[in-house]
Amino acid sequence: MRDVYIIGVGMTKFGELWDKSLRDIFVESALSAMDDAGVDHIESMFVGSMTPGLFVGQEHIGALMADYLGAAPVPAVRVESACCSGGMALRLGFFEIASGNSDIVLVGGVEKMTDSADVTAALATAADQEYEVYHGITFPGLYALIARAHMARYGTTREQLASVSVKNHHNGSLNPRAQFQNEVTKEQVINATLIADPLTILDSSPVSDGAACAILVSEKYLKKPAVKIIGSGAATDRIALHQRDDITELRAVKVSAERAYRMAGIGPENIDFAEVHDCFSIAELCIIEELGFVEKGKSGPFIESGNTMLEGKIPVNTSGGLKAKGHPVGATGIAQVVEVVEQLKGTAGKRQLKNIHIGLTHNMGGSGASSVVHILKLVE
Amino acid sequence: MRDVYIIGVGMTKFGELWDKSLRDIFVESALSAMDDAGVDHIESMFVGSMTPGLFVGQEHIGALMADYLGAAPVPAVRVESACCSGGMALRLGFFEIASGNSDIVLVGGVEKMTDSADVTAALATAADQEYEVYHGITFPGLYALIARAHMARYGTTREQLASVSVKNHHNGSLNPRAQFQNEVTKEQVINATLIADPLTILDSSPVSDGAACAILVSEKYLKKPAVKIIGSGAATDRIALHQRDDITELRAVKVSAERAYRMAGIGPENIDFAEVHDCFSIAELCIIEELGFVEKGKSGPFIESGNTMLEGKIPVNTSGGLKAKGHPVGATGIAQVVEVVEQLKGTAGKRQLKNIHIGLTHNMGGSGASSVVHILKLVE
Repeated sequence: MRDVYIIGVGMTKFGELWDKSLRDIFVESALSAMDDAGVDHIESMFVGSMTPGLFVGQEHIGALMADYLGAAPVPAVRVESACCSGGMALRLGFFEIASGNSDIVLVGGVEKMTDSADVTAALATAADQEYEVYHGITFPGLYALIARAHMARYGTTREQLASVSVKNHHNGSLNPRAQFQNEVTKEQVINATLIADPLTILDSSPVSDGAACAILVSEKYLKKPAVKIIGSGAATDRIALHQRDDITELRAVKVSAERAYRMAGIGPENIDFAEVHDCFSIAELCIIEELGFVEKGKSGPFIESGNTMLEGKIPVNTSGGLKAKGHPVGATGIAQVVEVVEQLKGTAGKRQLKNIHIGLTHNMGGSGASSVVHILKLVE
Repeated sequence: MRDVYIIGVGMTKFGELWDKSLRDIFVESALSAMDDAGVDHIESMFVGSMTPGLFVGQEHIGALMADYLGAAPVPAVRVESACCSGGMALRLGFFEIASGNSDIVLVGGVEKMTDSADVTAALATAADQEYEVYHGITFPGLYALIARAHMARYGTTREQLASVSVKNHHNGSLNPRAQFQNEVTKEQVINATLIADPLTILDSSPVSDGAACAILVSEKYLKKPAVKIIGSGAATDRIALHQRDDITELRAVKVSAERAYRMAGIGPENIDFAEVHDCFSIAELCIIEELGFVEKGKSGPFIESGNTMLEGKIPVNTSGGLKAKGHPVGATGIAQVVEVVEQLKGTAGKRQLKNIHIGLTHNMGGSGASSVVHILKLVE
């Protein structure tokens, strides 16, 4: 496989972008990434998006975005894997360059959720429609089940869950592109409106609009400093929660991470920081266990004692994560890459980490039925 | 790039499959392809589907199909480019193997359209929602505009359009998996219910359920006779018809074909037969011009005089095409591959061609905003 590098990234502010359309925000982020990379052309495009058909009545957005970017006739395709559509777009762009077919590829993600009347129902199409959704459950309920099981089995506390939101809101307060730039306290998280017991609205990522893009290249267009994709792993799991052996385990996360570590030839001990898929506070706990940052069942105390804060042992979601930065679902996987690239290049402003060389992105679909992990390394 | 081969194909019957669900038909075709290939595992999956969210309320079908195929935790992702979602799934599976990341990949396409209340509106999300669909036009209208322009500029006749449907219904009558296995006459086509002047219902592909899969491998799993993918090309065009310089030209088709020919190192004169995207009769005329089988503007007389029939100079849509075989949109691109592979291997039954070595598949999205072409060669 040929080496693949990221030479530019760009994203819109995340939030309620009511004065901009789906195509507007994608093109804004694409031009921003091309400007950052200093390139004036691309050879191919991958657009991650979960359900523009249900959110804004528009499918075929690979071609649409190529057209409105002024990039037609370049090949363009949409990639969907629910909330990890963005991460999958990165992976497929990586394959296209690794194969030798193209030397410069734009990968992006976009979602326009706030124009939709029934976001929860649209998101629920990522669960098993016949065996889960039909019976009335949606994602807050599915993640609440995981939270209850994790609390029962491992003694994880309500306060430990809240500490994820507190940390991520703090990080978001340092990120000018975050949807929420306010701090919250543990008490505020715990006493906020209950969504699905034990999760409150402050355990939950918001409904967001946004887009993010990255420019991938082969050696041919490499400009240093750049970020090399040294590992890519993806995996799936049973889609319905009730069909898994243990709902506190996210098998697709574990397997996708193992594959990415293997490709990179490193282990979790070599990761300096990570952006992970904290769609609900409980998700961040389970994920850092599956990624190998902490032993299974011990994420609660690990997070509560500050190990994943900006100044901690392994900072997680320095961007504010899905919780505070926002979660326009198809865009999230690429926005994670934007954060890791900016941290590695030292342009992350007030939330800049020190002495970092290797970062990890983890993006997940549904209640974990699909997962994709990338490992990124600075090359100077 | 590593060489990529197709060692097995499978598909369901196309039609109104009311006793089977989306997952049922995909798994049926996947098992059939694995059986044909004689393999018991895969390393990765690509699922082409246009809009399962709007048709049956289910997204995230990469993971869903991996689960119900019993293939989890293999990586799985859905690929969407409107009606060429299937062809794009093949292309991305090709890249994954060509890159060296995997040695055996399942590519498939699926759509369940007959369960939906408003198929025309769901399909219209492949057009430009803001500048075309908002004003009331849907695909029959868009293709009728192309037909009128082709007739005005090149003298193409109503009878010539009808000859596409007559040929494709004849071929479908020889295909046991076709949705329609009845012959039609020119008079029947012309006098059928008018859908969008000049197109009647017998110029139009039907609403269908169906799925198709193929097994792609590297040299590692090659079993002969196999079919080698010697060319893959994709391209885009302005999405809205009114923004193109000339609506009788399908630029994405032309560019995608040029790219596929270049990769294969051959030209249209080397193609023995083809499956093309005849969503409406006029589409087949424009497409064979852009593929280089006949000079621009001369497809009408070319088809009318029998050149594209089973015994003609270059047989087109030997399967019955979208018109007679059926058009479950996401499945179509892979079903075209099934036909070409079976023809090359000599297992096409009553519609078997003789002395063929190289076949072409052409799959298209919307009114031609995206297009993907593959060139397939028998290796014995």
